[in-house]
Amino acid sequence: MFISESLDVNEAGHLTIGGVDTLEIANQFGTPAYVMDEALIRKNCKLYLNSIRKACGNKGLALYASKAFSCIYICKLAAEEGMGLDVVSGGELYTAIKANFPMEKVYFHGNNKTPDELQLALKHNVGRIVVDNKYELDLLNKMASDACKTVNIMFRIKPGIDAHTHDFIRTGQIDSKFGFALETGEAMEIIQYASACKNLNVVGLHCHIGSQIFDKEPFLHAAEVMTNFMADASLKTGIVFKELNLGGGYGIQYLPEHDPIGYDAYIGAVAAKVEDICQKRGIEMPSLLMEPGRSLVGSAGITLYTVGAIKDIPNVRKYVSVD
Amino acid sequence: MFISESLDVNEAGHLTIGGVDTLEIANQFGTPAYVMDEALIRKNCKLYLNSIRKACGNKGLALYASKAFSCIYICKLAAEEGMGLDVVSGGELYTAIKANFPMEKVYFHGNNKTPDELQLALKHNVGRIVVDNKYELDLLNKMASDACKTVNIMFRIKPGIDAHTHDFIRTGQIDSKFGFALETGEAMEIIQYASACKNLNVVGLHCHIGSQIFDKEPFLHAAEVMTNFMADASLKTGIVFKELNLGGGYGIQYLPEHDPIGYDAYIGAVAAKVEDICQKRGIEMPSLLMEPGRSLVGSAGITLYTVGAIKDIPNVRKYVSVD
Repeated sequence: MFISESLDVNEAGHLTIGGVDTLEIANQFGTPAYVMDEALIRKNCKLYLNSIRKACGNKGLALYASKAFSCIYICKLAAEEGMGLDVVSGGELYTAIKANFPMEKVYFHGNNKTPDELQLALKHNVGRIVVDNKYELDLLNKMASDACKTVNIMFRIKPGIDAHTHDFIRTGQIDSKFGFALETGEAMEIIQYASACKNLNVVGLHCHIGSQIFDKEPFLHAAEVMTNFMADASLKTGIVFKELNLGGGYGIQYLPEHDPIGYDAYIGAVAAKVEDICQKRGIEMPSLLMEPGRSLVGSAGITLYTVGAIKDIPNVRKYVSVD
Repeated sequence: MFISESLDVNEAGHLTIGGVDTLEIANQFGTPAYVMDEALIRKNCKLYLNSIRKACGNKGLALYASKAFSCIYICKLAAEEGMGLDVVSGGELYTAIKANFPMEKVYFHGNNKTPDELQLALKHNVGRIVVDNKYELDLLNKMASDACKTVNIMFRIKPGIDAHTHDFIRTGQIDSKFGFALETGEAMEIIQYASACKNLNVVGLHCHIGSQIFDKEPFLHAAEVMTNFMADASLKTGIVFKELNLGGGYGIQYLPEHDPIGYDAYIGAVAAKVEDICQKRGIEMPSLLMEPGRSLVGSAGITLYTVGAIKDIPNVRKYVSVD
């Protein structure tokens, strides 16, 4: 009986994951137990990186969004597969450090990085700090100055796109706690402001428009808005943006009706859109960064529980308790 | 400026809790920090125990519902104040053990106690196991037999009362994953069944009808239903029930419109109702157990955070980030 790429049922009638009997896993490790199929995760990483390579050559990188599943082993795995890493907290950064992840490929996101977290990032020379707000920018500039370092930064931008309506909403998306708004001029202002900060080096821009998106259009819309804004900001500030990070949001299949786009189609279309606008606007094509998480690990993991009390309430329902 | 019994503002304009400057606490311990006012918790315990004593004399006990806030220190505090303890997981039981809580006053609840948790309870001679289902009863009887022990048990009963409508609902409340249903005969059956289990000693019955209840009526209704059922079960099985545990659910004030009943009025009315029915039915008044949690600690605690980035989005809203 075939259930999914990772799961099957063996001759004993037991569920298997990656060919391993789940009862043996439960007996050996106890329950509840998270079980991940490493081979499938590696395969997904390779597929994703391959799609990026096809679309962007060497000017592209996939960052594993460790919020999807963070532990030392998977950070090592992502490094081995040649991915970068997206971290959103001191805890995820600490995990990356413990995994000896190449720090120059770590991107540190978050809308409220604490002074301690920023110090940790500075100490370990994290590749990019994705700056979310002016408070953080000032704090980081001061810390970098105190440490006599120059820090590579990107900016989290609110492109004003609602992934689930495809609309460029002029007011709604301004109401987000993440990043700088395009529409109000806030994003342009902070870039100009940062270009005068001696210890900060503006490398690129970042956005993230949502999660579980099954349609190319919102991604293309975001690529268009962000690339045009990049060109505008280049003109205005003289900064040559080397990286454009379009975040995550790629939808995966939970239900039969979910219909993922396919990596090749998704990344190919987005890269073509960015390239097209770069040509039209006369700017250099930046490196294109994407942040897959769920799509690399979501289908590769299960949780094993032990069933305890069962209550079959006649004509009502059946409760099955797990540990 | 008076804010609440625990909170005030000092001359420096800083919030104080139990008279202590919260900025000093934050500086000393860092943030986020949970801060509890021990004096107020002790005062609340004393008030509660006093109300029980007034209503029941020595035939009453308050069990601190440790799910409200569980740590070693508060278990010690509850023990010092002369309370029993209500635990609902192996973790809470472990905390009680580490606090050297008098085990004979520990009541172990839960609808899916694992074999390991039951073994832990047996090993430490937990006062009462509040049995939730037949699976647990059989497991416990076997374990007690293997350990050559007799275990004091109570039964979690679904009295079929919806605290928020006051109705005795004949079908709705049967759909609960907690306990044995009265209406279907399930509760009577399990008591008869247990009375034949050599290593189990049926001490009493337990119910819990909801949370944040501001009205005496549902409590009185539950007391009536449970005491009558106790009398019925006594008649049918010959068991003399020594304890009736009516659980928690006492509402506390979060909002101005919340109007708590008052311990004296609540406990006094419930005890009178139980006594009245015991007299009418000719059974001995059992010890009355109550399980306050929220009302003892809820008003005594705050969490201290440090504010990070603030985003004031014109005409939309102001976001204040905390750690």
